[in-house]
Amino acid sequence: MSGRFLRLITIDEARRIIDANIQAIGGFEIVPLIEADGRILFEDLHAPVDLPPFNRALMDGYAVRSPDTFGATEEKGIRLKVIGEIRAGDAIEDLEVGRGEAVEVATGARIPEGADSVLMVEFADRVGEDELIVYRHVAPGENIQMRGDDIRRGENLLRRGTGIHAREIGILAALGMDQIKVLRRPRVCVISTGNELEYPGRELREGKIFDANGYMITAALLELGADASFIGVIRDSYDELRGTLESAVSGGLILSSSLVEPLQEGGISSTGSLRIWVSF
Amino acid sequence: MSGRFLRLITIDEARRIIDANIQAIGGFEIVPLIEADGRILFEDLHAPVDLPPFNRALMDGYAVRSPDTFGATEEKGIRLKVIGEIRAGDAIEDLEVGRGEAVEVATGARIPEGADSVLMVEFADRVGEDELIVYRHVAPGENIQMRGDDIRRGENLLRRGTGIHAREIGILAALGMDQIKVLRRPRVCVISTGNELEYPGRELREGKIFDANGYMITAALLELGADASFIGVIRDSYDELRGTLESAVSGGLILSSSLVEPLQEGGISSTGSLRIWVSF
Repeated sequence: MSGRFLRLITIDEARRIIDANIQAIGGFEIVPLIEADGRILFEDLHAPVDLPPFNRALMDGYAVRSPDTFGATEEKGIRLKVIGEIRAGDAIEDLEVGRGEAVEVATGARIPEGADSVLMVEFADRVGEDELIVYRHVAPGENIQMRGDDIRRGENLLRRGTGIHAREIGILAALGMDQIKVLRRPRVCVISTGNELEYPGRELREGKIFDANGYMITAALLELGADASFIGVIRDSYDELRGTLESAVSGGLILSSSLVEPLQEGGISSTGSLRIWVSF
Repeated sequence: MSGRFLRLITIDEARRIIDANIQAIGGFEIVPLIEADGRILFEDLHAPVDLPPFNRALMDGYAVRSPDTFGATEEKGIRLKVIGEIRAGDAIEDLEVGRGEAVEVATGARIPEGADSVLMVEFADRVGEDELIVYRHVAPGENIQMRGDDIRRGENLLRRGTGIHAREIGILAALGMDQIKVLRRPRVCVISTGNELEYPGRELREGKIFDANGYMITAALLELGADASFIGVIRDSYDELRGTLESAVSGGLILSSSLVEPLQEGGISSTGSLRIWVSF
């Protein structure tokens, strides 16, 4: 016990030291979209494609030319010729709806050329293989979602700095992006120091206490999105501590819980590779 | 495309079916404390030990009998005999402070028998090896944290159902608990179905769209604390779908995004082991 006073500094002064010695967290990494939850977007994202990527049926029914249905009523149906079928996911293969014609479509199917609307399946009766009686008219555009209606190609989608969560993952998946650029996470090593500290789960010998800070601070850092590791409890020994700090320092910021007396003795400045060290 | 209508049910009816067919999430598992972040406590927790586990010095200084310091001033010091030193983590080994005696203690050190207070190091001068001049009096209990002051053994600490986060991890670590009983997480398998679906990152062929629900729902479930996996995109094929569901069903709840037509054809009831299946 030396009786020397430690020099206390203000928070502002501490901030200046940190700013001068710690490089800002920078750089990006590319991660699979499915693992991006909780990460921070590195760059503005623009939609690479239209969503939906084609004009799309919103109902099960028949793709038709709407004028062909004008005048149809429950009492007086209009006959159309069914020339094909498109299910969700089908390619169209030169199918084109001409005057007096209809193509059976499923919800999500691509609308064939010529058709401008979808008549719901409930408002038509199928007669044999290729005939249809229509009992209601449809308006142009009815039951069709137009290409780019949800998101237009080139649209500014998400801004740099946005936190990625389930909603953002859904948007990016819908646009076909399976990996994204995110900010690198700060790497943080947590060390507890002190001869009095014992690991939870061990036997507590006389005069010892369990280390709480190591686990708690590591958990808090992980919650904040840091790449944090609890290095462990280090005894109050200059050599042990210096060795640990030097091997951990590749990390960047080192948080050590409790005052580190041995390093005061040995001199923090002697660890040349150590940029900053925060004790509390 | 059959034209048959599907039978819609109310939310209440759906809830009744789920309640009747899904067993409640139950049971516990024991996890290491360091991995417990985000889990839910399975049982009420009582403190297994006092915290701190012994009377503890709050300052660097000297453990003394307070009456020995009464009358000490800056002008007129009182001499005490230093009979030993206790650092943080040291066992005491029969050290007892008698009248006119003092023991050097570090912050966090166990207070020896006989002493009832700690005189801050700033208010004393060490004279040689074993003598001390005291320039201030201390009151009984001054600068000592009594055993159990933070948490008393047997105290109801955390209730069943509490979410475990950094703060709770710190409390449990301080009490020496390195593993805890938590609720089992619901296992959820996510399947997307439909011939129109393509995985993000693949080439989008005509008529196809990227699957967004699979990634998004899996991410949302993980955020909610479920043990969720995205099984993948399954084609609209009864055999393929039934095989996937049967291998996934050991999980419990299966969420499938989009309507599953092939199973309507094959009959959901034929998958004997399948308890419940939610389509949306």
